[in-house]
Amino acid sequence: MGTTQLESVPEPKYWHLKTVLTEALDSEFSVGEILPNERDLAARFGVARATLRQALEQLELEGRLQRRRGVGTTVAPPRVGVAVGTDPHAWPGAPGDAWRPVDCTVALPPGAVADLLETGRDERVHTVRRSRVTHGRPVAADLLYVPDASVPDLSAIDAASGAARARAVLRELQRLELEGQDQAVELGSASAEDAKELDRLPGAPVLVVTTRYYAEDRTAAVSVATYRADTCRLTFGDAGDVEIHHDPERRAS
Amino acid sequence: MGTTQLESVPEPKYWHLKTVLTEALDSEFSVGEILPNERDLAARFGVARATLRQALEQLELEGRLQRRRGVGTTVAPPRVGVAVGTDPHAWPGAPGDAWRPVDCTVALPPGAVADLLETGRDERVHTVRRSRVTHGRPVAADLLYVPDASVPDLSAIDAASGAARARAVLRELQRLELEGQDQAVELGSASAEDAKELDRLPGAPVLVVTTRYYAEDRTAAVSVATYRADTCRLTFGDAGDVEIHHDPERRAS
Repeated sequence: MGTTQLESVPEPKYWHLKTVLTEALDSEFSVGEILPNERDLAARFGVARATLRQALEQLELEGRLQRRRGVGTTVAPPRVGVAVGTDPHAWPGAPGDAWRPVDCTVALPPGAVADLLETGRDERVHTVRRSRVTHGRPVAADLLYVPDASVPDLSAIDAASGAARARAVLRELQRLELEGQDQAVELGSASAEDAKELDRLPGAPVLVVTTRYYAEDRTAAVSVATYRADTCRLTFGDAGDVEIHHDPERRAS
Repeated sequence: MGTTQLESVPEPKYWHLKTVLTEALDSEFSVGEILPNERDLAARFGVARATLRQALEQLELEGRLQRRRGVGTTVAPPRVGVAVGTDPHAWPGAPGDAWRPVDCTVALPPGAVADLLETGRDERVHTVRRSRVTHGRPVAADLLYVPDASVPDLSAIDAASGAARARAVLRELQRLELEGQDQAVELGSASAEDAKELDRLPGAPVLVVTTRYYAEDRTAAVSVATYRADTCRLTFGDAGDVEIHHDPERRAS
């Protein structure tokens, strides 16, 4: 049964090329090295440019290659493990938080966020923008949506915008008792704004982590964080980082 | 500073098209509906086929569209929330487990898995293949790697392979006291084997979840699960499912 199906969907040409390229990357190239240009690579492996490009795209998805404007295609370093939700009992901005507050505005949240917050689609909420840097590189951008009801004592005397305002919102949020949180991870593509912050091109694949924070029996805040999918491995659990290194050939049988 | 950078990286043409297409999807099409063909769409929006294709690829990444062999491009249903690691104190195969054992072989694990298990690169391990179905659709394929040391009483009398063997390995594993687990999520591309199981084409983007299980002060088993990135949203935490629905325009300011 399996065989018949396999035969009816023949393995695409670029798939075999990908395997060959992976072996070449392992044996001939080192991290950071620039690959020959597409024309030379296509000639070396005896394939059409379109086939080569498909294989390169696959290897980029798997984190083996990086394509950068003005640099070309380079061999990627192993993905960095980035701890997500290590402490389910801490608010954003609590001591030890890996995020840096950047800005804060008051704006209409996306409809899906408004539904989670039960604020109604026409209610503006505090929107804290934060960024996360690991090993000196931008790895994630975050928007934290906080309705007025969660920060009732937030004073208008505090800075009206900017990082100071962001810190004021986070400080007020921490006065609530956090009852729990849950998270979801899905695939997305970088918006123009995220792309700029993450040093990627718009549309690049990203991992989107949505966290819902509960307090006083309701959703008190929602965070939508966008992680670079090329360089990040998101880690969950006590040990923080699962020390699994890049291995594209996870099948060995 | 931000502005200068934005101006130096102009928004690509397909990006604007994507926004326009998203609005059309929301207002004119319903879930499951087949989109007009590329030529007609390109003509309607006055863009080149290549630009259209880029926009469609983006929308596929974001889970708004599905492209299927022999069917064409259809409007995707909202992603399904799939709970990952809901109970950190249960072994794979414990009651309530969402996975179905399919097969079991003895094979060399990938190098990265061997390193996690500290088995040495030339030691073969029990390799349990499992699959997960949600709402009648295949959503994930899993390989669970179990070294001999974790199932010392596994009897050769049990079935030598197949689902019965898989169940025997899981049953033996459950005799160990589970001390904890951690998980990592990253982007990958479907191998030919995964693709067949997940009803996708090889190379399709997938979310790869690596789970390390600890017992007796060491890594007793490693699971590498591959989830469809187009239809799944992975959920973590007590509440199981973060009820956030698809909203590609998460920025509202």
